[in-house]
Amino acid sequence: MKETITAQLNWRYATKAYDKSKKISAADWAVLEQSLIAAPSSFGLQPFKFIVVTDPAVRERLRAAAWNQSQVTDASHLVVFAFKKNLNDSDVDRFINHTASVRGIDATMLADYAGMIKGSIASKSASDIAVWNSRQAYIALGFLLSAAALLNIDATPMEGFDPAQFNEILGLEDYSAVVIAAVGYRDAANDYLAGLPKVRFSKDDLIQTV
Amino acid sequence: MKETITAQLNWRYATKAYDKSKKISAADWAVLEQSLIAAPSSFGLQPFKFIVVTDPAVRERLRAAAWNQSQVTDASHLVVFAFKKNLNDSDVDRFINHTASVRGIDATMLADYAGMIKGSIASKSASDIAVWNSRQAYIALGFLLSAAALLNIDATPMEGFDPAQFNEILGLEDYSAVVIAAVGYRDAANDYLAGLPKVRFSKDDLIQTV
Repeated sequence: MKETITAQLNWRYATKAYDKSKKISAADWAVLEQSLIAAPSSFGLQPFKFIVVTDPAVRERLRAAAWNQSQVTDASHLVVFAFKKNLNDSDVDRFINHTASVRGIDATMLADYAGMIKGSIASKSASDIAVWNSRQAYIALGFLLSAAALLNIDATPMEGFDPAQFNEILGLEDYSAVVIAAVGYRDAANDYLAGLPKVRFSKDDLIQTV
Repeated sequence: MKETITAQLNWRYATKAYDKSKKISAADWAVLEQSLIAAPSSFGLQPFKFIVVTDPAVRERLRAAAWNQSQVTDASHLVVFAFKKNLNDSDVDRFINHTASVRGIDATMLADYAGMIKGSIASKSASDIAVWNSRQAYIALGFLLSAAALLNIDATPMEGFDPAQFNEILGLEDYSAVVIAAVGYRDAANDYLAGLPKVRFSKDDLIQTV
């Protein structure tokens, strides 16, 4: 597994050209969706939604709102990561009730935990909450990209799009698009990046041991 | 691999109690570091640093600035994710020069790309840049947590600490701590969470297909 992880994370790259004819299998896609669901988040609140766009007409509209980047329409799947713009006590209650249900206990047993989470939320400004939630979505992005690489599936994380237009096209109100990922199979013959060595700063530049 | 990914991402959890006697092997740690280095970032700028804290005395001080959470001192390794607080043209030039060096080309061939990145940075406020960079660090967090799970290594992402105190203890100036991860091996007998089922909202709650 050690060699596989290192090799696959090096194999992946921000794919520019996708093979439009190659689709991700249902079995592989189920694993990628599971990686999104399993991704951790602060307190476990999962303050995000993942919009999987398969409708070609919608993807054409999104592409127009994403600097016409071909990955938006040409990759097998497109995932829009949207974070919840605010949090309130009802979000916490919903989470606590779900936790109690999964664990087969009464929600009142989690009252202290609920109060602690509500206090944490109350201590933050609206913009702090938006930033906090958006960061959680990026953990899920990391999970998706890692899982895809391990399955030999290409993926492109992309921030080059207009979130307001995406929100309007997708009908998002309580959530806001923050990053997207095209997922599919590279068209290596037409992707100038496919043959180039990966560019990363060195371990000494990035990691400091104390 | 499909079954392994699903099983390991379900196996992992935000470990509360670590076995202080179990250390991550050098070979495994090298893979985890590689996952941090390989994590993608916007434009490839890698606007972050990872501080791996092994010094027990430093970890005691950090624990005091992290609500006394035991994972900070007890896990085999502690990684502090720090994002670069600002970006300027020299960061772009450094990245472009490195890219040219890796690809064996002259940096002038990347002048258009450099100009585009500089323009993107110039269009953002200082606080937008800080948020942007901090999000990139969370992709790397996702990579680390995924890789650890695949290697049967436990990890705990944690936001419950005082960034200002962490920055001071670690001597960070241009960078700011934003999230930390304890990494090691669970002490299942002393971790109430170890035996509990994972709590996640359902696929229908989280994923919307358009």
